[in-house]
Amino acid sequence: MITSLHNKDIKAVEALAAKKRERDRQGLFVVEGPKMFGEAPAERISRVYLAQSVAEQMRGQYGEKLSGLSCETVSDEVFAKMSDTKTPQGILCLVRQQHYNIEEILHEKDKKQMLFIVLEDIQDPGNLGTIFRTAEAAGADAVIMSSRTADLYNPKTIRSTMGSVYRVPFCYVESLSSIIMKLREEGVSVYAAHLGGKAAYDDYRYQKSTAFLIGNEANGLREETAACADAMIHIPMKGRVESLNAAVASSILLFEASRQRRIGKS
Amino acid sequence: MITSLHNKDIKAVEALAAKKRERDRQGLFVVEGPKMFGEAPAERISRVYLAQSVAEQMRGQYGEKLSGLSCETVSDEVFAKMSDTKTPQGILCLVRQQHYNIEEILHEKDKKQMLFIVLEDIQDPGNLGTIFRTAEAAGADAVIMSSRTADLYNPKTIRSTMGSVYRVPFCYVESLSSIIMKLREEGVSVYAAHLGGKAAYDDYRYQKSTAFLIGNEANGLREETAACADAMIHIPMKGRVESLNAAVASSILLFEASRQRRIGKS
Repeated sequence: MITSLHNKDIKAVEALAAKKRERDRQGLFVVEGPKMFGEAPAERISRVYLAQSVAEQMRGQYGEKLSGLSCETVSDEVFAKMSDTKTPQGILCLVRQQHYNIEEILHEKDKKQMLFIVLEDIQDPGNLGTIFRTAEAAGADAVIMSSRTADLYNPKTIRSTMGSVYRVPFCYVESLSSIIMKLREEGVSVYAAHLGGKAAYDDYRYQKSTAFLIGNEANGLREETAACADAMIHIPMKGRVESLNAAVASSILLFEASRQRRIGKS
Repeated sequence: MITSLHNKDIKAVEALAAKKRERDRQGLFVVEGPKMFGEAPAERISRVYLAQSVAEQMRGQYGEKLSGLSCETVSDEVFAKMSDTKTPQGILCLVRQQHYNIEEILHEKDKKQMLFIVLEDIQDPGNLGTIFRTAEAAGADAVIMSSRTADLYNPKTIRSTMGSVYRVPFCYVESLSSIIMKLREEGVSVYAAHLGGKAAYDDYRYQKSTAFLIGNEANGLREETAACADAMIHIPMKGRVESLNAAVASSILLFEASRQRRIGKS
């Protein structure tokens, strides 16, 4: 059992939780809590840490999954130091990052109607995680992000995905313009959520392969990004609201596509 | 200028930011940042605090609004202590709480199609604020909350409303069952968002007065609350997502009602 706050493995976990550079270097990220451990694919888990006071309970609950994994018990004090949360839940694991290839994702395009969400510089980790969770629920095939979007492997983002991080393909791209043009060449219709869009979001039909572009929380989409889309759409708003939360706007668009596809089928 | 960290006014602001009991006792809440100050109705502002380093700039930008208000400059160190944020923006004000009467709100029901969102025990301050922001944008008439819902006047909630806190009527109620029965008696159709709902949310028409019930983030709606509704509805989900974020679910329902009412008119 690890009881020293200065143990090198403990310091390594703290660095992984705190620094994107460290996560990228090691190709790992930190996952906390029973739910997120339970949903993590076992073959991607490189190490598990249990807090002493709940280790027995966790072994009882997750014995089968834990049996094949490298597992270490640490004192509660050490666990609290590793944890990113105020009320640590006593289980934490390191998970190998997954890299997806947008080309492979697009290969599916002839078989089905695809759905993408493309994010420009989303900054709030909670928003980003919520968008992943919502994207999975709406049946999206991938989340595409500008390189200045928050890091998906930030512990707060991971938590907000509620497990979708393991299941929704994604990629970060240097140039959104290039990926938008590529999507269009591949037959995906691209709609930019933009306050200046003349059409309401429900004026279009999203039965065919569709991508929605969502801009940064404070500034919305860059004009040059919006200009690459097939069309600009807006979500009609009442009252004196200037814009919607980015995760809310994403949800309304993704679920409108989902709704249209569902009723189109019945 | 206040330069002492122990000044009693400064301590009073800190208490208002930290404690619901103190906010309720004084009937005030704390608002931070130029945007939220700019949107606050001047007649409800009881005091303004400016950080020394930006006081001149703020007086330039908000001179007209500030002129009729009780305004105090404080040292940057004092301001940082009062502020709830990591990067204080140099302007903070105390705003008088507003109390709404659900009876008065319902008096409007014969004149228009009403829209309500009813929240059971929502805990996350950010979610609650985002629901207010979205409710205003969707044209909701009021947000009704169970007494165990997070405090709207929590600084984090206030920030997330992006100003909707000043404009969307709301009330906390002891018994959701009673208010649901009252809404139904007044001709409002009440729909409970519930994973067990057989109907999809878009199976119903929301042109007439409508209320949506949304449950707690972790547990969803209580069975006894859901049972009071006219109908239970679910949002069809793909993948392995167990539930949606409460603000996301609220948004999808509110904007479906908004969409139906908009296209119904055209």
